[in-house]
Amino acid sequence: MINVGIAGATGYTGSELIRIFANHPKINLTALTSESRAGEHLRDVHPQFAGLFDLSFTSINDLNFSDLDVLFLALPHKVSMGFIAEHHPLPCPVIDLSGDFRLPDADVYECWYGEKHVKPDLLNEAVYGLPELFRNEIKSGKLISNPGCYPTSTILPLAPLVKHQLIDTKTIVVDAKSGTTGAGASAKDNTHYPNVADNFSAYGLKTHRHTPEIEITLERSLGERPTIQFTPHLLPLNRGILTNTYSMATKPIDEKELRSIFAEFYQNEPFIRLRDHTPQLRYVRGTNYCDIYVTFDERTNRVITVSAIDNLVKGAAGQAVQNMNILCGFPETEGLTLPAVCP
Amino acid sequence: MINVGIAGATGYTGSELIRIFANHPKINLTALTSESRAGEHLRDVHPQFAGLFDLSFTSINDLNFSDLDVLFLALPHKVSMGFIAEHHPLPCPVIDLSGDFRLPDADVYECWYGEKHVKPDLLNEAVYGLPELFRNEIKSGKLISNPGCYPTSTILPLAPLVKHQLIDTKTIVVDAKSGTTGAGASAKDNTHYPNVADNFSAYGLKTHRHTPEIEITLERSLGERPTIQFTPHLLPLNRGILTNTYSMATKPIDEKELRSIFAEFYQNEPFIRLRDHTPQLRYVRGTNYCDIYVTFDERTNRVITVSAIDNLVKGAAGQAVQNMNILCGFPETEGLTLPAVCP
Amino acid sequence: MINVGIAGATGYTGSELIRIFANHPKINLTALTSESRAGEHLRDVHPQFAGLFDLSFTSINDLNFSDLDVLFLALPHKVSMGFIAEHHPLPCPVIDLSGDFRLPDADVYECWYGEKHVKPDLLNEAVYGLPELFRNEIKSGKLISNPGCYPTSTILPLAPLVKHQLIDTKTIVVDAKSGTTGAGASAKDNTHYPNVADNFSAYGLKTHRHTPEIEITLERSLGERPTIQFTPHLLPLNRGILTNTYSMATKPIDEKELRSIFAEFYQNEPFIRLRDHTPQLRYVRGTNYCDIYVTFDERTNRVITVSAIDNLVKGAAGQAVQNMNILCGFPETEGLTLPAVCP
Amino acid sequence: MINVGIAGATGYTGSELIRIFANHPKINLTALTSESRAGEHLRDVHPQFAGLFDLSFTSINDLNFSDLDVLFLALPHKVSMGFIAEHHPLPCPVIDLSGDFRLPDADVYECWYGEKHVKPDLLNEAVYGLPELFRNEIKSGKLISNPGCYPTSTILPLAPLVKHQLIDTKTIVVDAKSGTTGAGASAKDNTHYPNVADNFSAYGLKTHRHTPEIEITLERSLGERPTIQFTPHLLPLNRGILTNTYSMATKPIDEKELRSIFAEFYQNEPFIRLRDHTPQLRYVRGTNYCDIYVTFDERTNRVITVSAIDNLVKGAAGQAVQNMNILCGFPETEGLTLPAVCP
Repeated sequence: MINVGIAGATGYTGSELIRIFANHPKINLTALTSESRAGEHLRDVHPQFAGLFDLSFTSINDLNFSDLDVLFLALPHKVSMGFIAEHHPLPCPVIDLSGDFRLPDADVYECWYGEKHVKPDLLNEAVYGLPELFRNEIKSGKLISNPGCYPTSTILPLAPLVKHQLIDTKTIVVDAKSGTTGAGASAKDNTHYPNVADNFSAYGLKTHRHTPEIEITLERSLGERPTIQFTPHLLPLNRGILTNTYSMATKPIDEKELRSIFAEFYQNEPFIRLRDHTPQLRYVRGTNYCDIYVTFDERTNRVITVSAIDNLVKGAAGQAVQNMNILCGFPETEGLTLPAVCP
Repeated sequence: MINVGIAGATGYTGSELIRIFANHPKINLTALTSESRAGEHLRDVHPQFAGLFDLSFTSINDLNFSDLDVLFLALPHKVSMGFIAEHHPLPCPVIDLSGDFRLPDADVYECWYGEKHVKPDLLNEAVYGLPELFRNEIKSGKLISNPGCYPTSTILPLAPLVKHQLIDTKTIVVDAKSGTTGAGASAKDNTHYPNVADNFSAYGLKTHRHTPEIEITLERSLGERPTIQFTPHLLPLNRGILTNTYSMATKPIDEKELRSIFAEFYQNEPFIRLRDHTPQLRYVRGTNYCDIYVTFDERTNRVITVSAIDNLVKGAAGQAVQNMNILCGFPETEGLTLPAVCP
Repeated sequence: MINVGIAGATGYTGSELIRIFANHPKINLTALTSESRAGEHLRDVHPQFAGLFDLSFTSINDLNFSDLDVLFLALPHKVSMGFIAEHHPLPCPVIDLSGDFRLPDADVYECWYGEKHVKPDLLNEAVYGLPELFRNEIKSGKLISNPGCYPTSTILPLAPLVKHQLIDTKTIVVDAKSGTTGAGASAKDNTHYPNVADNFSAYGLKTHRHTPEIEITLERSLGERPTIQFTPHLLPLNRGILTNTYSMATKPIDEKELRSIFAEFYQNEPFIRLRDHTPQLRYVRGTNYCDIYVTFDERTNRVITVSAIDNLVKGAAGQAVQNMNILCGFPETEGLTLPAVCP
Repeated sequence: MINVGIAGATGYTGSELIRIFANHPKINLTALTSESRAGEHLRDVHPQFAGLFDLSFTSINDLNFSDLDVLFLALPHKVSMGFIAEHHPLPCPVIDLSGDFRLPDADVYECWYGEKHVKPDLLNEAVYGLPELFRNEIKSGKLISNPGCYPTSTILPLAPLVKHQLIDTKTIVVDAKSGTTGAGASAKDNTHYPNVADNFSAYGLKTHRHTPEIEITLERSLGERPTIQFTPHLLPLNRGILTNTYSMATKPIDEKELRSIFAEFYQNEPFIRLRDHTPQLRYVRGTNYCDIYVTFDERTNRVITVSAIDNLVKGAAGQAVQNMNILCGFPETEGLTLPAVCP
């Protein structure tokens, strides 16, 4: 049993971590922080946990860091790096779910996030927590930067293609669609129910922050910097990201071969499910799976992938727990084998 | 052609009035006010109207009252009575869509709205704009108080029962369910998409402001003050109110007779559709209809009604235009005969 | 570890049992039957279970009854009693999720189900599997008849009121709203997406089969036969039932007292959560909880309850597993402590 | 006033035509056919029209062709060409909403539709009813083949780019998302509510019939045959198609210039709205508009377009009425100027 805390546990990534911990046999959840709800009981902030936990929120300033074996940061961008800068060197491993330590270069961060990075010297120490590509680094990580939801859903299907040089990496188009929880737990105009229900729209064309995260991560792991055309959309549903990638093939490829390359690339991965049919969000809802479909279109000479994740699980809290499992030497799937709540 | 203006046209009742006016042959829409969006073009505030109107918002202070034949107030409660108090005597007929002049008694207003009424002397001059019950008063009204959405959907099915003393008016239970637009156009916690989608809940038990409006209106028109147990709910959809009423019958009644009483009561009403099957919200979406079903349960000795309206049309803007048509001597259905957008 | 089988596992109650078993430490799921999908692998019928089970469907005729410790019947009404009649005496305990053995009287069955009962002599042996009221009988049951979804959501809030004679049982109005999974997994006109989305309607007025189940169960456990006015509705969402009950109080009652009566009545019940606020479906989604709120309206002299369950869990598969846990002497909450997937 | 009939009026395109005709001042709707509902009244088949029309369905065999000025065919693919083959030469102009006469080549038809064409000699006489590109041909058309919904939403944003050779037409990726009404009015497994709600998925990769329709139409009007990578998706909402196109630019282009090219290309088009922001489905719901946004990404050298239509209006019935208006010499916008029902 280890003691874990969550800083910033009123949002969706926070509550999703708590949901997973309720079913994790090796976890003692000992601290939850929130500035706005400090002093309140968990069941009043997140009524779904009534009867399951007896815990209250504290201020982050009252967090007793030395009692913790792992600390999850579910804080907003910018707040997260401020906290880390302040507490460095960190007394226990930290898994940061914000975007602050995902990009290795402070200039790129400033360019896409529009802020100066306050702790640039840590950028290279941070480990990018995508287990399928960086498992070894995660094992000994001190600061694990949990991947973004869109990058997770995009990098996983592209990685085998890039590694095996099956696609022209200057031709990649990524068209991704996310559920509304991706926009956070605070009421905003663009997430007002009547503005989302019965509606669908694209946003962040050409400028979404996850673009460089995808490009740089693929380069870091595979040696080549692709150019990604990335367009996200807001779906009228709560959870899930479906991502399509379209790339020109370097040469015509047999579909069977394509699938066997993927099967080999992900052969021991417990959370990658290669699918014979195009994935559906409902089959991954509430789970840590990434379902992937790949095909080749002879007529157009393109490789197409379709992938599905739950943005709050494999795209956030679930992947963070997977990282914790690796870090702590637990079985990697511990607490993460629940099937989808479907329908 | 008459000139009309809308004060407070950024909300849903405001935009719904504009939608109806786009199809009304006798209307010149000449003024739109908004304090927060003054100076902006209609197409930037409500992009659905691009290509249909060439109008900009002004401040309410810049409204030229004397140019108008009818003014619609789509202002928040309290703001509305303040405006009316300030401009009294009104230079043109006003149709007020707020709740400020719906209750005839300032004490009752204060009790249920939690505010002192600022213009109590006008309460008895205001005409309650439910055409099916008060058409004659509306014809010569100066200040027409447009009914609430829940009261419209509740009073219409109950009126024939109360008038003909078919039910014990101390036993009425009203269980009503409304789409989310009923909560207004401003983003709030309880209308945040993930809090509404895939969810359903009751609110305002025992204390909803529409309760006295229903009781008093039935008393005003029919001579007897019923007691209403009223419970509203929030539906995960945009538009529509479905309302059930349950009442003990004063005596067993043949279902055929029940229907013929309703048919007679509403025989010349263009917007009441008596249904042989339980109503569905989709058949009234975007329309000014109130669909009504009535039945008698021999086993329990209860009369049950189910009614459906679009809360933004018959429950707000459409009924307001119906009132304007009556007031101005236009055909009562002018601009209001569009079928439902279904599905 | 016990061996369990599910007859009729292609529907929603079947797949929900499988979902729960994936997290139940004492269960060996050894048999799944389906006539239409016999021979197919579980992951092809319910793709959400890919990677979690290695099981195929067989015909019910190939079921090896003697290998099983418990058999769940997730068969349609009528098919279920046919199967039981054919295999009587049952070689292992059976938990029947159909409605065939819920009513103790063959005439009442025929009246509300429109079919003759084929095994009336078993009706009195069947135990009604609502643990909160019949736990002792369940412990030694051979044929457990799992309650209907609406009755579960209705009986639980009414039981304390009826037992303590706090309400006039001839005045009970029950207005219930269910998600669409309640209508089953087969595509039908009334569950075609465009007929449900953005829509809401009542059905089964005066005639729903769950009406006598509620009345008779309350009578069986508490000694008095109430008259229930029951109206169900179809909600545009997948899971959940929200049920309101309205009853005249036998005498005015302090709200505090009301709550303490409920607290005492359900003091040791792990799946009843008494709430200070009106329940919301999202807080019970995917769980075996029944959330209950009770209040008294002085103005109208009525007691009102609002309850929420997941129709597929506490309303079907979860309660069936709770019954199995009781029957097998397992901790009653085994496999059933997952928090809601919210939002 | 002209007399019009609709063959196959029980589906969504049929009911949408009726909805539009309710507001069209020059139309006498005189005939509705349906084989399955012949003899029934319109209000029983489509209850939303109660109070608006007094019409019954007949069999298509009882259709009196010579009484009609225009006949709309809202029949399934294959049935439509059979009907036309049988009645050729047509006694009045026909607007066919099926896909049977959209492709000019019988071999291409057979290849993508999997059926032999039964009336190939008419393929070249049929006019492709996209007014923005083929208005002149429509004016004198005898058989107008109404475009598919996806092609309408794809061709309109691509046409200016192809015509001005701004993009490399071998690089076009089209990622389109449609509401569920696009799948028709019949209940099917893939449109069962729980399979669509809270879900999202791609379908028809590489093989969708609308692919050649897009390619050939762009070639027909603009002289160059593009290669389209087309992927459709099913959205959890009723109406609307949002389509993204991604193409490599032939040379870098100023965004201002791009917009002015579109503005010129569509300068007199009443139903094309060029947008400064990415379109949203809610702003076109129920309308005949196609909202288009175009941008250039310097970083990737791609031109991106986003377009939005209502699949049942501009993608089907509305465009058919627009064609009829052109054909009959009516103002082109007659009956089609209703604003969106939003929200």
